[in-house]
Amino acid sequence: MPAANVFAAGCASRVVLDHVTSKWGVLVIVALTETSLRWGELRRGIEGISEKMLAQTLRTLEADGLVHRDAQPTIPPRVDYSLTDRGHELAAHLLPLVRWVGVNAGDIVGGR
Amino acid sequence: MPAANVFAAGCASRVVLDHVTSKWGVLVIVALTETSLRWGELRRGIEGISEKMLAQTLRTLEADGLVHRDAQPTIPPRVDYSLTDRGHELAAHLLPLVRWVGVNAGDIVGGR
Repeated sequence: MPAANVFAAGCASRVVLDHVTSKWGVLVIVALTETSLRWGELRRGIEGISEKMLAQTLRTLEADGLVHRDAQPTIPPRVDYSLTDRGHELAAHLLPLVRWVGVNAGDIVGGR
Repeated sequence: MPAANVFAAGCASRVVLDHVTSKWGVLVIVALTETSLRWGELRRGIEGISEKMLAQTLRTLEADGLVHRDAQPTIPPRVDYSLTDRGHELAAHLLPLVRWVGVNAGDIVGGR
């Protein structure tokens, strides 16, 4: 079992679990696994995410130390997002899960 | 990358990913990893889950073929929930993620 208790409502691990398994959090982390991306690339790459949800997801992941935001003072300004070391660690645990879902989703939905 | 495209809004894998990474879906699957549990055991074990959310989560996971519901025609009726083979496969991918969150949650929340 985990060192912390995810079953306890007040435990920090519940808060973090919510962030990293949120609908958009997972997709943003997976999208950033191989390369850093600009705002517009994330927005276009993750179909269906609104500007508001992308902004909110990136803010949460940045505050959690999982995503790094690099703003260049150019004109126009250029902002790149990438995974931190901790974010890459998390991605290493998320990717096998996402791959399993990708392989099995057809059977799961088809069998309903 | 996954065989299916989780970044496409209409892809089945997006639907399944939502189910298996939902706040309560993760906790129910993790709770059932080691043993089958009765309704009340799940309800008490997963702090903060409402009757409605537990019922809805179990229905979704059952429809996905991840959780098996075994109703005994006793008086009072006894209902046990357990993971199917597919559910155990999924749990094997979820547990490392949940463990990582358990170990790192303190640092993540503390570093904010």
